[in-house]
Amino acid sequence: MIKAGIIGLGYWGPNLLRNFCKNPDIEVVTAADPRPEARSSLQSQYPSVRYVEDGMAVIDDPEVEAVAIATPVHTHYPLAKAALEAGKHVWIEKPLTDNAEQAAELVALAEKNDLILLTDHTFIYTPAVEKLKDLVLRGELGDIYYYDSVRVNLGLFQNELSVLWDLGPHDVSIMQHLIDKPMKWVQAVGAKHAGQSQETLAYITVQFEDNIIGHVHVNWLAPAKIRQVIVGGSKRMCIYDDNEPSEKIKVYDKGVELKSIEGIHSALVQYRLGDMHAPALPNEEALARATAHFAHCIKSHTQPITDGRAGLAVVQVLEAAQQSMAEQGRRVYFVDPRREDPAKHYQDKLVQLISSPTMVR
Amino acid sequence: MIKAGIIGLGYWGPNLLRNFCKNPDIEVVTAADPRPEARSSLQSQYPSVRYVEDGMAVIDDPEVEAVAIATPVHTHYPLAKAALEAGKHVWIEKPLTDNAEQAAELVALAEKNDLILLTDHTFIYTPAVEKLKDLVLRGELGDIYYYDSVRVNLGLFQNELSVLWDLGPHDVSIMQHLIDKPMKWVQAVGAKHAGQSQETLAYITVQFEDNIIGHVHVNWLAPAKIRQVIVGGSKRMCIYDDNEPSEKIKVYDKGVELKSIEGIHSALVQYRLGDMHAPALPNEEALARATAHFAHCIKSHTQPITDGRAGLAVVQVLEAAQQSMAEQGRRVYFVDPRREDPAKHYQDKLVQLISSPTMVR
Amino acid sequence: MIKAGIIGLGYWGPNLLRNFCKNPDIEVVTAADPRPEARSSLQSQYPSVRYVEDGMAVIDDPEVEAVAIATPVHTHYPLAKAALEAGKHVWIEKPLTDNAEQAAELVALAEKNDLILLTDHTFIYTPAVEKLKDLVLRGELGDIYYYDSVRVNLGLFQNELSVLWDLGPHDVSIMQHLIDKPMKWVQAVGAKHAGQSQETLAYITVQFEDNIIGHVHVNWLAPAKIRQVIVGGSKRMCIYDDNEPSEKIKVYDKGVELKSIEGIHSALVQYRLGDMHAPALPNEEALARATAHFAHCIKSHTQPITDGRAGLAVVQVLEAAQQSMAEQGRRVYFVDPRREDPAKHYQDKLVQLISSPTMVR
Amino acid sequence: MIKAGIIGLGYWGPNLLRNFCKNPDIEVVTAADPRPEARSSLQSQYPSVRYVEDGMAVIDDPEVEAVAIATPVHTHYPLAKAALEAGKHVWIEKPLTDNAEQAAELVALAEKNDLILLTDHTFIYTPAVEKLKDLVLRGELGDIYYYDSVRVNLGLFQNELSVLWDLGPHDVSIMQHLIDKPMKWVQAVGAKHAGQSQETLAYITVQFEDNIIGHVHVNWLAPAKIRQVIVGGSKRMCIYDDNEPSEKIKVYDKGVELKSIEGIHSALVQYRLGDMHAPALPNEEALARATAHFAHCIKSHTQPITDGRAGLAVVQVLEAAQQSMAEQGRRVYFVDPRREDPAKHYQDKLVQLISSPTMVR
Repeated sequence: MIKAGIIGLGYWGPNLLRNFCKNPDIEVVTAADPRPEARSSLQSQYPSVRYVEDGMAVIDDPEVEAVAIATPVHTHYPLAKAALEAGKHVWIEKPLTDNAEQAAELVALAEKNDLILLTDHTFIYTPAVEKLKDLVLRGELGDIYYYDSVRVNLGLFQNELSVLWDLGPHDVSIMQHLIDKPMKWVQAVGAKHAGQSQETLAYITVQFEDNIIGHVHVNWLAPAKIRQVIVGGSKRMCIYDDNEPSEKIKVYDKGVELKSIEGIHSALVQYRLGDMHAPALPNEEALARATAHFAHCIKSHTQPITDGRAGLAVVQVLEAAQQSMAEQGRRVYFVDPRREDPAKHYQDKLVQLISSPTMVR
Repeated sequence: MIKAGIIGLGYWGPNLLRNFCKNPDIEVVTAADPRPEARSSLQSQYPSVRYVEDGMAVIDDPEVEAVAIATPVHTHYPLAKAALEAGKHVWIEKPLTDNAEQAAELVALAEKNDLILLTDHTFIYTPAVEKLKDLVLRGELGDIYYYDSVRVNLGLFQNELSVLWDLGPHDVSIMQHLIDKPMKWVQAVGAKHAGQSQETLAYITVQFEDNIIGHVHVNWLAPAKIRQVIVGGSKRMCIYDDNEPSEKIKVYDKGVELKSIEGIHSALVQYRLGDMHAPALPNEEALARATAHFAHCIKSHTQPITDGRAGLAVVQVLEAAQQSMAEQGRRVYFVDPRREDPAKHYQDKLVQLISSPTMVR
Repeated sequence: MIKAGIIGLGYWGPNLLRNFCKNPDIEVVTAADPRPEARSSLQSQYPSVRYVEDGMAVIDDPEVEAVAIATPVHTHYPLAKAALEAGKHVWIEKPLTDNAEQAAELVALAEKNDLILLTDHTFIYTPAVEKLKDLVLRGELGDIYYYDSVRVNLGLFQNELSVLWDLGPHDVSIMQHLIDKPMKWVQAVGAKHAGQSQETLAYITVQFEDNIIGHVHVNWLAPAKIRQVIVGGSKRMCIYDDNEPSEKIKVYDKGVELKSIEGIHSALVQYRLGDMHAPALPNEEALARATAHFAHCIKSHTQPITDGRAGLAVVQVLEAAQQSMAEQGRRVYFVDPRREDPAKHYQDKLVQLISSPTMVR
Repeated sequence: MIKAGIIGLGYWGPNLLRNFCKNPDIEVVTAADPRPEARSSLQSQYPSVRYVEDGMAVIDDPEVEAVAIATPVHTHYPLAKAALEAGKHVWIEKPLTDNAEQAAELVALAEKNDLILLTDHTFIYTPAVEKLKDLVLRGELGDIYYYDSVRVNLGLFQNELSVLWDLGPHDVSIMQHLIDKPMKWVQAVGAKHAGQSQETLAYITVQFEDNIIGHVHVNWLAPAKIRQVIVGGSKRMCIYDDNEPSEKIKVYDKGVELKSIEGIHSALVQYRLGDMHAPALPNEEALARATAHFAHCIKSHTQPITDGRAGLAVVQVLEAAQQSMAEQGRRVYFVDPRREDPAKHYQDKLVQLISSPTMVR
């Protein structure tokens, strides 16, 4: 049993507590939140947990092996640093930090101390994104051309947080997970509407190697909720609509091929208009799967799919996008921090995750 | 009766011919196309028209008062110039030309010779876009925040023409029609996939004055046909889905307001989640309405809604977007060529177009 | 404070417990279920409730004023009868009973003893159905022509219970709530598929006075979940799609009118194709509203919207449908047990329920 | 070349003329309509056709081998009878006649004179219905459980024609085409709204052998256009939505199986929730395919898929439904007139129709 502590019982913390408690490999021994009402409402449901006021008490608790941090983003760095220095494995909510420098420091610290650092990009653990990754890995899409996502709704404005840093991590992490090619540059444009001091709308473009382009549209001032991702490939193309109750992923056997005809200079464009296929997806909670993955990584001493480098890569894109918006939308170049052969790396991990093909709900 | 001639009977020309022939104010006297089969197939349907081989014969025909040009884009400039110099009114397919310099020359020539120059941005004459413009003019949306459009499908690649110049004119013209504020700069990014020499995907951002942002996504390599425009305003927001058979426009009485509370520094965000309304739209062919508008403008000597300046403004955006793509996506600044008070200008025109409110199909 | 007891803590009982506990006018003093694990899992969450094994102990508890019954349907009658005889108000899950004779006996008993008997047809308390009823009462639909509903999915077969008795109560109760005209006859056809001993599919037709027809399609063997109601009226028509996340009700200003022209025999059909309107609906839990209504009815001594007679009327339709299916689908006539002027009756109740028109979620 | 004549150039006749003229095996020599304007508008488009006033002139024309009849339904019988007696093959619009007695007479006459009699149930020739039939024939759906269709919209009232006879033929013919089991009885209920003398709404139930049930809902007074068919089978289930632009057919690998466990009495229900699959369909005009099938049947002397018996079977269902509505909705029994082994019969025909599996549009 991995003995775990949770810091922060606000919006997301109780979900962590519930999933950690349900997991057979984890025992939550302590949880911290400064607000008494946050603690007392959970005490009756999870009475075996020791509730404390101060997050540092969780980190200092010698019984605790793994610390989950679900506090406001500006506190991620000091808490995670203290936990890693104290030799604890760390689960941290997205985004990893609010700047790349501190994120990189956490990554280095975790690697030096040989500790698991999992960034909770929960979407990566949804059956839908797992299926997309599976399609990519099996080569079903061919060469990836582009990743385009729209994530808009009439959103809950976050104080002092732009839509870029609030909604952006979801799409940037999914995009990076699917495209295992190094990123080259980021370019972004945003707008502040309705009297807000932070961006309420942003368009972010990410250029990967091998002519793969990613584009993310996040917007808090849209009249309807749209959650749509298009992944274009040379063989097939997918639409992932997270609003769909049952057919979230549609795989289109459509494409264009160039046939060069002997003796004729110009190539002939040929369209392929095949079937559409919506694979069945298991009806499992992503956070439960992420929790199981965390426990597995600790026990087997392997890197999580959304390790510190994955979390850092997301922060780097967001930071670069912020910089681009501040500098007339110019391209901001940077070095992709992710591991060298992520395809292989991920594949091994994925095999552990992927459920049996004929899932019965 | 306005005596008209048509040059080009390829893909779009026959539609022009059909609508011009149906219009009670226009008499098509001659039509030109170099391909005999293009002429002969129309001859039986419209036998009163004189069919000729050479477009210049249409322009030189002394009987012809108005010339419609539906030829490949690189021939627009010489044909339109000849027609305007010969004192003929001109209807020209979109885009006006393939470069801003020639477009500006045509605009100047038409204005000097006091001739009507209508750029056929057909979408502007659809009941759906008319309704959107009507909502904007009546202030139903409040201050416009943004225009966001997605126009993607598995497209028919055009030889030597990028998706930017093929699909882009539709969205750029609608956006400019709705937002009667000067444009400041354009920024764009594109990608060439499936072995194409021209862009198959492009993202174009247009900055207008008063913090209004426009963004257009055009893509020829998408698995499904999406035709979706979101217009965000301070009072209401619209979604225009051209794929919808009957409810193309949805007006959402939704928004965010800032309430400043006396004595408290930070403003309070208040959400308004009201009804959705889908106005009935008349079931009329846009091209028939554009044709009627052309005849009206010639007879009444008034500027068309999609006059030469509107056509030039579209070309300027496309040209600037092309330049931006060639120069690392930098912002390209330019002067909006449209008239000074387009709201007033358009409003007069619109009044003539708008059908009675209780339309019965 | 109304002191209440709950019998049955299986699938629906815990929802009742949660809502009764949240309601400021109700205090849950005791709850019964024979299964220890059902009791213990709720004990930690609602520790102030006394948990007992036997439902009769709840009824016999002198402190208890109101009893909620959420047990299998064949136990409804004896439990409700005992509770009403003991002078307790009764909340009972749908369907009221599994036969009309016993349902009628409960109604008579409640009326004789002057006690509240509420049948929990929860859908009646959803904001969507409330809005439909509101549209009907205000005359917005004109004269109602028909009610047509489709409620199909790949369903969870209930042991020894047909789809008619499982899904049917929802639609029959909504239909009766909206159409305040006496029912005349019922006709039904069903089918038993996939080796089931009970109907897995049923079509039920209900004839109301004034040429109003109702039709319900329930089906457990459908590939997708469809929840669609169409209400046709002489002035407007509605579609209620319960799968829609936000626009559940669409009101179409469409219809047909007959214009008789003087001197001409045959009347002219004229189509009206107006706007569509989707009213905003408050995001409230129906069961919480039903609970508040129950407390209100007890305190003010008024009949609930879904009183015993409403519950009986549903049972009568289901019983008649069952009989029709057994007798070659013949029409089964019966007397509508609902009160004489339900429109007036409901209207008073509704006024208490209907929220302010400009609801802000 | 089959020399053909067409009688009736009203709403549908011109479509017949266009498709017959396009077909390489057919030469339209003459066409009749009493209204001069109907003739003259087609004369310029199809100048090689001889236009006459009287339909009998077409039948009497010795050059004519095949007669297509697109006149009001009450004239079908005398015209078809005359044509068949004159030794001509006959194409007749749906419904074959307005009563079964006359339909049976035409069938007998065609069979006696060894002539092709094709009832134009055009939907049978759509790629979508062909695909459904193909799925049934290949056993992909397993045993068929039910056919359920909804065909509603705000319709164009037909003078003196009920919705049953106007929209009903489409669904009844599709249902009969897919279910090659004898029909046993029909039961129906209808309603006349908006002051109409004929039904504006009807529900028709058809019982086939082997516990297969069919149900059709047709309605002219619905606020939106719905065209939805569900076919439930023991192995798979389909939804056919004719409104969908590209994914008309969705095949769900979903179902329920009964596992009987040794030693345990009650069987265990097991759900299968597999993938959804939307096969690509060729983008071909159904009427062109029907026309080709007609020519093929004449040349090869084989029975059409929608032969006279198929047309008669549709008329019998409609007539029985009408009778059922007139007699309190009672079940009306009749003998299915279709051939004994329709599966085999249709399969041969289908093989000629079905296009290559990897269709490229």
